Amino acid sequence: MKIGYAGIGIMGRGMAANLVRAGHDVTVWNRTAARTADLAASGASVAASPAELAAACDITMICVSDTPDVEAVTLGPDGLLGGLGPGKLVVDHSTISASATTRLAEAVQAAGAEWVDAPVSGGSEGAENGTLSIMVGGDTAALDRAMPFMEAYGASITHVGPIGSGQMAKLVNQVLVVGNALAVSEALLLAEAGGLDLDATINAVKGGAAGSWMLSNRGPQIIERDWRPGFTIDLQQKDLRLVLESADELAVPLPGTSLVFQMYRALQRRGLGGDGNHALVKALEEMAGLEIGTN
Amino acid sequence: MKIGYAGIGIMGRGMAANLVRAGHDVTVWNRTAARTADLAASGASVAASPAELAAACDITMICVSDTPDVEAVTLGPDGLLGGLGPGKLVVDHSTISASATTRLAEAVQAAGAEWVDAPVSGGSEGAENGTLSIMVGGDTAALDRAMPFMEAYGASITHVGPIGSGQMAKLVNQVLVVGNALAVSEALLLAEAGGLDLDATINAVKGGAAGSWMLSNRGPQIIERDWRPGFTIDLQQKDLRLVLESADELAVPLPGTSLVFQMYRALQRRGLGGDGNHALVKALEEMAGLEIGTN
Repeated sequence: MKIGYAGIGIMGRGMAANLVRAGHDVTVWNRTAARTADLAASGASVAASPAELAAACDITMICVSDTPDVEAVTLGPDGLLGGLGPGKLVVDHSTISASATTRLAEAVQAAGAEWVDAPVSGGSEGAENGTLSIMVGGDTAALDRAMPFMEAYGASITHVGPIGSGQMAKLVNQVLVVGNALAVSEALLLAEAGGLDLDATINAVKGGAAGSWMLSNRGPQIIERDWRPGFTIDLQQKDLRLVLESADELAVPLPGTSLVFQMYRALQRRGLGGDGNHALVKALEEMAGLEIGTN
Repeated sequence: MKIGYAGIGIMGRGMAANLVRAGHDVTVWNRTAARTADLAASGASVAASPAELAAACDITMICVSDTPDVEAVTLGPDGLLGGLGPGKLVVDHSTISASATTRLAEAVQAAGAEWVDAPVSGGSEGAENGTLSIMVGGDTAALDRAMPFMEAYGASITHVGPIGSGQMAKLVNQVLVVGNALAVSEALLLAEAGGLDLDATINAVKGGAAGSWMLSNRGPQIIERDWRPGFTIDLQQKDLRLVLESADELAVPLPGTSLVFQMYRALQRRGLGGDGNHALVKALEEMAGLEIGTN
């Protein structure tokens, strides 16, 4: 079985490297060809175009930035579609629009091939260490074919429904991430203003009903004013834009998520888009004229 | 060492019972005396008034509903203050105003006694099973004296700062609880509208950056439309009122918490104040004209 990987960026690099490391027969393609050099040196073949990649491989993975990028790689000149046919499968690990995913899947199905949407969470560290969570939408049979290869980089792989469902589940994931980040931001600002020992406060509450991954992992980072990104505000905003577009299409009100989107917008305006998403607290600090970790 | 317990309600009952079970010499008082019968039958003494309770005991615990209740028990006719003196200690397990706590502590200190604020989280189940989290504000020496007795019902006891800090930490806890509840509500409503398998979606995301106690414990309950309270909306609103008053005094903006307060207000108006706090999702469902668990 020949496996293709399109998009050797911050996420794709680690995922493709894990495929090679697991002993699979891997071919890669990247828009900027130089970025494939490391993988070629460790045994991967390199394709000259997405069409060539899809023609050479049974299953082709994609991981690029946004909806237009997946559309260009799939439907553009020399796109995957040129090399697809019956029996072939595309697995999209990008986080993109669920409705665009349906259209992409239809184009690929028209060529006799199949599509699975499989966005990931866990960041570049998860891609490198093979500990990603993968949310999969598509046919069970298609998922079963891709499974042994996704296991090279995914620790938790969950089938959540038909095509587009993986993208929808990723949006649900992002609503939780930013909602929890807002709660942590408000809580720590109140704790600071109230003169509490912030480390002791986190330790006192994190084991109970107030607990979250965000509090345990980013709370201490906020106290240290360490804004290094696990996931940047700019990327978070790209995903929140998909969330709010999707919620609007589905006529679902998301008042908290919408509030966070506006707060991140203010931070981007201040040039802080490269900070980690836990820097959300800076928007509240600015309003309050108060900085955490200063008392 | 003689231990007093004032307030044999839904929380105090379990805490006092654990003190008796641990072999301590316990005296209890309750406004409605009949509610002390079980504890008396299991070996506790019963005092006729808070003043008599405080006079008879070295350390007196309180757990009542709200700020005016603690003020009445402490400063009212036949209140604790009438029986307090040098060497005695009051431990307040109620969740009340941090600024009122400072005034209560001053009144008690004027009589030569000491005050520790020690609100709890973990619900009636935690009180019964002795697994409460206790957030303590006050002198280290006073905390040390109370510690062996609080260990009868507290699994995690954290000193967070001077008098009033325990109350402030509890407010911080509640900001996190309701913020996480809002995130879970928006996420599950989006998942429902997007046609996802909700159980599979929770399982796909709960182990990562989206994870929280609220998602893992109340998410499945929301899917089942099981609104039985771990903590009621009415009690949550009482605590959020304290949060927003305190935040206003401290000039801290809490836009997300404030939004949740308004949503709970709408649910109280619909007569849903006795539902669990995870019924927050009903406010969004009403806006969206969509019910979770129906597709």
